[in-house]
Amino acid sequence: MDEFTLIKDYFAPLTRGFAGSLNLADDAALLDVPPGQQLIVTKDAISEGVHFLGNENPALIARKLLRVNLSDLAAMGATPLCYFLALMLPGDTDSDWIEQFAEGLKTDQAEFSIHLAGGDTTATRGPLALSLTALGLVPQGQALLRRGAKAGDDIYVSGTIGDGALGLLSLQEKIIASEFLQQRYLLPQPRLALGEKLRNIANAAMDISDGLAQDLGHICTASSVGATIHRPLIPLSPAASGLVAANPELWNAILGGGDDYELLFTAAADKAPQIQSLGDKLNLPLTRIGEVTEGSGVSVLDETGNQIKLERRGYRHF
Amino acid sequence: MDEFTLIKDYFAPLTRGFAGSLNLADDAALLDVPPGQQLIVTKDAISEGVHFLGNENPALIARKLLRVNLSDLAAMGATPLCYFLALMLPGDTDSDWIEQFAEGLKTDQAEFSIHLAGGDTTATRGPLALSLTALGLVPQGQALLRRGAKAGDDIYVSGTIGDGALGLLSLQEKIIASEFLQQRYLLPQPRLALGEKLRNIANAAMDISDGLAQDLGHICTASSVGATIHRPLIPLSPAASGLVAANPELWNAILGGGDDYELLFTAAADKAPQIQSLGDKLNLPLTRIGEVTEGSGVSVLDETGNQIKLERRGYRHF
Repeated sequence: MDEFTLIKDYFAPLTRGFAGSLNLADDAALLDVPPGQQLIVTKDAISEGVHFLGNENPALIARKLLRVNLSDLAAMGATPLCYFLALMLPGDTDSDWIEQFAEGLKTDQAEFSIHLAGGDTTATRGPLALSLTALGLVPQGQALLRRGAKAGDDIYVSGTIGDGALGLLSLQEKIIASEFLQQRYLLPQPRLALGEKLRNIANAAMDISDGLAQDLGHICTASSVGATIHRPLIPLSPAASGLVAANPELWNAILGGGDDYELLFTAAADKAPQIQSLGDKLNLPLTRIGEVTEGSGVSVLDETGNQIKLERRGYRHF
Repeated sequence: MDEFTLIKDYFAPLTRGFAGSLNLADDAALLDVPPGQQLIVTKDAISEGVHFLGNENPALIARKLLRVNLSDLAAMGATPLCYFLALMLPGDTDSDWIEQFAEGLKTDQAEFSIHLAGGDTTATRGPLALSLTALGLVPQGQALLRRGAKAGDDIYVSGTIGDGALGLLSLQEKIIASEFLQQRYLLPQPRLALGEKLRNIANAAMDISDGLAQDLGHICTASSVGATIHRPLIPLSPAASGLVAANPELWNAILGGGDDYELLFTAAADKAPQIQSLGDKLNLPLTRIGEVTEGSGVSVLDETGNQIKLERRGYRHF
């Protein structure tokens, strides 16, 4: 495969309709940021054998890579603008693989209204490695940051928690779980519509990628506050609920496992009705799981109000 | 090594003074693009064993990665704003390596007035892989594109051509060359000041990364024009000149080899005095090497006006 053919056949078509890409035919992309908007930029990298096995459907690898970045945009309250892709391909990559990978991008570009705008395609002597940089826009001063949580705020999560971690355990054949949970791990849903609507509601927000307890700790550190969450309030899917009823040890995976890509946010107590109606409108559960406190650190309380000692606080990358 | 320690100790310090990074403590960066400015974005990826050997000084690897991206900003006429870095580290990477790598970034951040604003640090089971996304600003409508060349334009290059290719041949022990040429390969000089000044002078521009002849072909294709260059006009360093006098075959490397990162641009003939005085001001040779023509394709003429058949038209990535 020739780099220029690869770009022309598979990647240039992904830029169509987005003039700023300059059709991938220039040194860089040229983008307009409308007045009154700020730019949000996030970048993630994944590599074979660490973040994915390599034998997955290439379309799924592409879609997950795009989605984890879109989830960061959602967590900032941004609207997607465009993305840049670096592909480091092993020598034995064939054009079928590339075609399916590009097809996956195309599917999710349509779903999330985003276009490819640039990047780099190159060879590697090692396993497949990918990096994606996503850009989004947010009205001036309305970005959702981690540092705005205030003592007394309610703490919310979107959707259900722990599905991604249980799905991964199942894919690793450590537990037996439904395809629903595996799918939640393989193809997370970036909560973009929610993020946009939270701009004027939430005081702090982030996406849950390293585990609920650890990620909430990041909001606490950034905001110089503490947090208490109540385990019985944590929303579980029916599939996760069934598993944890049979094996309570799985709570560790639910509280400490990553890959949910749901939004975690705090808001003043008087926003509760707005949040309730927003969840109804989006057909997405938004569940109050605890409260922001003075002090520091995250406490997780069980059914009787006793503090739970967490065995594993979240995903560590090394 | 723990990812969070790594970020705190080595990478967060590289964001100091750049508020948009949010100290690497949020989901993404939050950037302001001033009114009247457009955003330029470029992304390159490099991996061990393909783009570098791996046993180089880590500071040099970091600086070259940053510089090749800055060269793309220069080619668009942009002023650097910030960059995003993805590091995929093999398991045996030690903190000394990281420290030296970060030190290299720090050196070039100061030289080119750019800051780290975000990214990702993760493990890989393969060789070291890196990707960098650089952002720059350019006044509305003034970006230097490849598509603006017009028949009758003069064609210019900055600096000297072929040093990078000869330096690489020397590092590969295929020829014996001076340290000057090796250094030109290892640590290219992004022509940022030149790019900014060419905004109102050049009709088309790009940086030479894949070889003069091939890269000029890209401008011709984008602009629907042809080009003629005169080999005797191509500016060579004294070191390159000496080598090619002894071995004329090396012209193939000079015309077709990559890694010069000089700017290649076209301008109307009446801009010649301005370009001359700009070169003097920047203390950087700006040399007219040929002219844009009607038609298509690149012709290289020798001393007697005969067309040279190029053996190798430029770097191919696969």
